[in-house]
Amino acid sequence: MAKQFSYHQQGQDISVWAETEDGAIEEAKDELVNRDLNLDEDEIRENIRVIPSPQRIKSPAEDVLMDMRRRGGMEAAEVVEDGMDVGLGTGSTTAWAIAKIGWKIDEGTLQNVRGVATSLQSHELAKEAGIPLINVDEVTELDVAIDGADQWDPENPHVVKGGGASHAREKLIDSMAEKLVIATDENKTSTPLSYPIPLSILPESRTVVREWIRDQGGDPTLRYAEKKDGPLFTANGNLIVDCDFGDIEDPEERAERLARIPGAQEHGLFVNMVDEVVYGTDDDVETTRF
Amino acid sequence: MAKQFSYHQQGQDISVWAETEDGAIEEAKDELVNRDLNLDEDEIRENIRVIPSPQRIKSPAEDVLMDMRRRGGMEAAEVVEDGMDVGLGTGSTTAWAIAKIGWKIDEGTLQNVRGVATSLQSHELAKEAGIPLINVDEVTELDVAIDGADQWDPENPHVVKGGGASHAREKLIDSMAEKLVIATDENKTSTPLSYPIPLSILPESRTVVREWIRDQGGDPTLRYAEKKDGPLFTANGNLIVDCDFGDIEDPEERAERLARIPGAQEHGLFVNMVDEVVYGTDDDVETTRF
Repeated sequence: MAKQFSYHQQGQDISVWAETEDGAIEEAKDELVNRDLNLDEDEIRENIRVIPSPQRIKSPAEDVLMDMRRRGGMEAAEVVEDGMDVGLGTGSTTAWAIAKIGWKIDEGTLQNVRGVATSLQSHELAKEAGIPLINVDEVTELDVAIDGADQWDPENPHVVKGGGASHAREKLIDSMAEKLVIATDENKTSTPLSYPIPLSILPESRTVVREWIRDQGGDPTLRYAEKKDGPLFTANGNLIVDCDFGDIEDPEERAERLARIPGAQEHGLFVNMVDEVVYGTDDDVETTRF
Repeated sequence: MAKQFSYHQQGQDISVWAETEDGAIEEAKDELVNRDLNLDEDEIRENIRVIPSPQRIKSPAEDVLMDMRRRGGMEAAEVVEDGMDVGLGTGSTTAWAIAKIGWKIDEGTLQNVRGVATSLQSHELAKEAGIPLINVDEVTELDVAIDGADQWDPENPHVVKGGGASHAREKLIDSMAEKLVIATDENKTSTPLSYPIPLSILPESRTVVREWIRDQGGDPTLRYAEKKDGPLFTANGNLIVDCDFGDIEDPEERAERLARIPGAQEHGLFVNMVDEVVYGTDDDVETTRF
């Protein structure tokens, strides 16, 4: 995660950040000089906190969109109460929820919370944010899960997930939660859903599964890795086929047909699972409940 | 595979075998001496053929049952015709089908056949038997698949498979075949099916999936490995939970509910997939067609 100097005292409203703590302190010093303020290094350090690193979450988003996501993620974190076991999703919006939970634990306004990460990435973020973590196999129920989405439907409790290839663990953990809160932004909506559905598959099934997706009326694309030759492998050694069905008019039937494909491990269509969507807008944050 | 000296000339009917070719030649020489026959070593070698090794297929079956399986497997091989692409299943009965296909290729009575193996084990057997092999990703259709079963239903085209933990690849390859022939024996029948259904799952889902199986009315057991500490892993890095539901009264619904479990990769209930069952009996072999 990156580090942020966040200072809101003496009528000031300062927020600067850098990838490292030393970098953030330098940024803070520059800004304090600009504003004719005088804080010693210990005072500066006291106001440094962790934030998701744009480099780490590899977001292609521009600043305004990041700001939407920041608002969505931070607001979603408000659902977490003392003593809860929380599923921690993957992605650029959920990263802000993880950071916010960490800040609240750090401030002492949130206690006895335990997180279960949906990916190596959310595990690392949560660890750095100071959230106590347990393994997914240690519990069978979670109080709440906060997760992102590649596309959400404002009229129905369905989302498409898996752009980050973590949808299998996300669906597992989100299914364990009494309440699933999707943290996202207002630009990712579609009624009906139409985002290509990621399908994780056994590597040896890659040829015939694409044929079967075409038989089901979809347009399949094997996902290729960056920074590595050949296809992308998930944490469980599966490949990803992104299956474009255009408008998904009957998500229940689509989900069932995808689940039955031999060789398929998990698809990214989450049907009737969403309890709440917290989404950032241009200048605010809103909530849709199902 | 083991080696068999099989000699049916001069009014003789000799069949002896050993794990190695040298061993089989020694057995043959002993038997020929017993019968006062004189063959030189080249003539003996000409009548040596590969057979499934009881050690390799690790069958706990007694001789009579092996004989049933031998009959079932060898008869099932008759479905293969010139030019066919054939799915090659896993297990002690299918091993005999693989051997028989190899003999026919060797004799020249079967030509231009290509096999697709459902497991490392069937791949190795088929290679040794001399069947030309292609990878599963090279084709999207097979003419026929020959596979075993842990339990079959004489009244319905369903089987339970996966005692050998290969059911995911078996279901993939059997689904690619225009015709699925189950090679088995008469002792493995049940109407309705009642064999515990193997379910391959993501390792991290092992706790909650067992809870969900109990919610569905099943009795789950995590399968442990032999010759290795801890649970058994499949070729794709999944674990196996054997899910005992007692009598499976509604296999379609059961299959659908298992397929939808988050964390599940594939289950061993094959519903409406079977075209033909070839099964050995005490002294014969019979066929049921669906």
